[in-house]
Amino acid sequence: MKKTILITALVLSGLTSFAQSNEEKNIKLFYKKALTEAKCYSWLEYLSNDIGSRLSGSKGAEEGVQYTKRQLETLGLDKVYLQEVMVPHWVRGEKETAYILDGKVKTNVPICALGGSIATAKTGLTAEIVEVQGIEELKTLGSKVKGKIVFFNRPMNPENIETFVSYGACVDQRFAGAKEAAKLGAVGSIVRSMNLRLDDFPHAGAQSYGDLPKEEYIPTAAVSTNGAELLSKSLKANPALKFYFKQSCETLPDVLSHNVIGELTGTVNPQNIMVVGGHLDSWDLADGSHDDGAGVVQSMEVIRILKNLNYKPKNTIRVVLFMNEENGGKGGAKYEEVSKQNNENHIFALESDSGGFSPRGFSIEADDTNYKKIKDYTPLFEPYLVHSFTIGHAGSDIGHLTSKAIVKAGLKPDSQRYFDYHHAANDKFDAINKRELELGAATMTSLLYLMDQNGIVLPTAN
Amino acid sequence: MKKTILITALVLSGLTSFAQSNEEKNIKLFYKKALTEAKCYSWLEYLSNDIGSRLSGSKGAEEGVQYTKRQLETLGLDKVYLQEVMVPHWVRGEKETAYILDGKVKTNVPICALGGSIATAKTGLTAEIVEVQGIEELKTLGSKVKGKIVFFNRPMNPENIETFVSYGACVDQRFAGAKEAAKLGAVGSIVRSMNLRLDDFPHAGAQSYGDLPKEEYIPTAAVSTNGAELLSKSLKANPALKFYFKQSCETLPDVLSHNVIGELTGTVNPQNIMVVGGHLDSWDLADGSHDDGAGVVQSMEVIRILKNLNYKPKNTIRVVLFMNEENGGKGGAKYEEVSKQNNENHIFALESDSGGFSPRGFSIEADDTNYKKIKDYTPLFEPYLVHSFTIGHAGSDIGHLTSKAIVKAGLKPDSQRYFDYHHAANDKFDAINKRELELGAATMTSLLYLMDQNGIVLPTAN
Repeated sequence: MKKTILITALVLSGLTSFAQSNEEKNIKLFYKKALTEAKCYSWLEYLSNDIGSRLSGSKGAEEGVQYTKRQLETLGLDKVYLQEVMVPHWVRGEKETAYILDGKVKTNVPICALGGSIATAKTGLTAEIVEVQGIEELKTLGSKVKGKIVFFNRPMNPENIETFVSYGACVDQRFAGAKEAAKLGAVGSIVRSMNLRLDDFPHAGAQSYGDLPKEEYIPTAAVSTNGAELLSKSLKANPALKFYFKQSCETLPDVLSHNVIGELTGTVNPQNIMVVGGHLDSWDLADGSHDDGAGVVQSMEVIRILKNLNYKPKNTIRVVLFMNEENGGKGGAKYEEVSKQNNENHIFALESDSGGFSPRGFSIEADDTNYKKIKDYTPLFEPYLVHSFTIGHAGSDIGHLTSKAIVKAGLKPDSQRYFDYHHAANDKFDAINKRELELGAATMTSLLYLMDQNGIVLPTAN
Repeated sequence: MKKTILITALVLSGLTSFAQSNEEKNIKLFYKKALTEAKCYSWLEYLSNDIGSRLSGSKGAEEGVQYTKRQLETLGLDKVYLQEVMVPHWVRGEKETAYILDGKVKTNVPICALGGSIATAKTGLTAEIVEVQGIEELKTLGSKVKGKIVFFNRPMNPENIETFVSYGACVDQRFAGAKEAAKLGAVGSIVRSMNLRLDDFPHAGAQSYGDLPKEEYIPTAAVSTNGAELLSKSLKANPALKFYFKQSCETLPDVLSHNVIGELTGTVNPQNIMVVGGHLDSWDLADGSHDDGAGVVQSMEVIRILKNLNYKPKNTIRVVLFMNEENGGKGGAKYEEVSKQNNENHIFALESDSGGFSPRGFSIEADDTNYKKIKDYTPLFEPYLVHSFTIGHAGSDIGHLTSKAIVKAGLKPDSQRYFDYHHAANDKFDAINKRELELGAATMTSLLYLMDQNGIVLPTAN
């Protein structure tokens, strides 16, 4: 079995119909190996249950680096190494508390500080609170929010079939809400969690004060969706009620961390690099099994399957486990920086950072010609119920790559459950289904293999 | 909004391109209504958490009948009624116990009696145990199994992408294993649970002694997959070890129960009936949220959406909540029996009995012409990521229908997680995702609407 792919690869050129049949056979083999002997699930079990959360700068993040490097070293790749990168080091501190203060009645609601936020005073912050449906509405209020807390409560739209569309249309409230509220003199900012469900989990995530002077920073947190509903209802009954929250998070000095890299060197065009990756860091509230433990172990699985089949890639295939996607993107930026220094030529990049659910297709960044070429692979994926090849955002970490001619793709798993877990305390190993995770890895292996075999179409000089 | 569909339906005939666009608009409306105002999730919450398990003949089954009838009565349908049906009444009795007896060492394994099984003696049953990979291997052993317990341990094949294929290739061990073992003089039968995961849940399910004389019946149970692995490993080390199990299940006299039926009478061809349904009964170990609470509430949702939009169907649309799919199929058989008595003409039947997961398509029973017609609807479903229209088994309850010209379809949800829960104690409401359930209901509504609008092609007389 070991030689199957090597042999079929050698006879590919010029024999399209025969090649098609070999592609079918090899893809079948990838799925079989993923469903019967994959290591991704047990890798993820260790990463999630033995190491746990991996926020940049944390002990868990460093342990994740060392563990995945050790595991890659067992695979017999041509190279395994670490790439140094300085990352932000934000820590949550004590568990946050918050309540609605209506007259003398206090009703607790679950919150979590947003990544990068400052703390409140040690005694917490109490102020009147103003609900808005977004930054636009905030701006119409102007100085009316001065001295108050701003409550961003625009929910994710349930009507979109792809939940990332709803996320994209809401997340500005989380990322830039505090900054915009501070500009108008608000003293704090609370955002409804990016979650389509009504439940009690506050969802963390990055926020940025942008270029505000430090003395204008205000503390900001996310409230659970049930908490947001309650707060909104309470405000309708009594617009003068107050909100209290207390958090002790802080930003410590940057820390040295690493991207983890493993490589199978190309046998025909070693100078052409194809990246497959996910991000090692997670938020701190859980072990980040879906975001993005799944993407990390799937990327490792891709290269394990290919190596195990003794596949000799035409191009250099590189698995990259990025650090710091969640609150800085420093790993992705550093990878691109070093790549430029070394005059590397990336032609394809594949990312998995949308959860370990049943794979449905890929979100592709490519020109028309290359997109069409990938879309033509659809029949090869249909037996595996992978059917959706669309133009769209491929991934944050590979988003940094700027090679002249590069095709990027992001694995698109079924997205219905993703925001039940995203950045929250329930993004844990028990939310992972082994087969769904493995099918994702097989789907990624198949596309990477097709891209390696068939290459990309270079832009013509005009 | 209420008149939208009625109006567009009236202008349909002859205007294909305009019709296409109306179909798109109406389907979009169904998904919108399902994702923003559906009742299926709260219905299921009540059915699962307030009523609980609903094995035929149980108090829960009867409560399920009354509850769903009451709910259908709130929808303003043209008819809501119960259809009497006598059903088997098997009860589990006390929780089962089982252990591997290796010398003097007892190791407990989790088992559950299979539906229809007899009890062991009150003190339990101890005997040597012989592992086989299926009924075929059993037959080669002949009288060697006499006085022993037979252990059917062929696992579900992980290589199949559609997990129902693996189920179909294994479930004969559960359904007919005891009967075949008894014929050879075995004293008991244990079957590996129909589960692709390794875990500690034994999975219930029906078994049948066929036409064996009663005095030859032997007790039979399912063991968890972890238990099966342990037993198999232990047997390899010591083939002479013994197995003990005790169960007190029994079959009581048949009980009067009901199918629950609701109807929107057709406005053009009321004599033509289109059924949409799922089954009300569940196994007794959990509340059966996926199997088949999901199918019940989705079917109710279909008719709720249509009625709420003031849709006037051309044909009669009937929601049927079948009793006793799990251990007898008496509800489905009775429905067909009464239908024949009344000279009813069923032209289409749609079933949901594969779990409440993200809808992927339909499994269709139809002649080539009608199959092709349905497959041509694919572009209408693509915006909703519903893509797989295949020929295959549509459903057990609608399987009884024998109208001359009838098309049948079964909703095909993503199947990866189904056998994690199927017939086991973890098939509970917390395993349901609201959006996935609602998307399934919208997908069913859309197909039923298209079938009602466009009809089926009748076979030509030869």
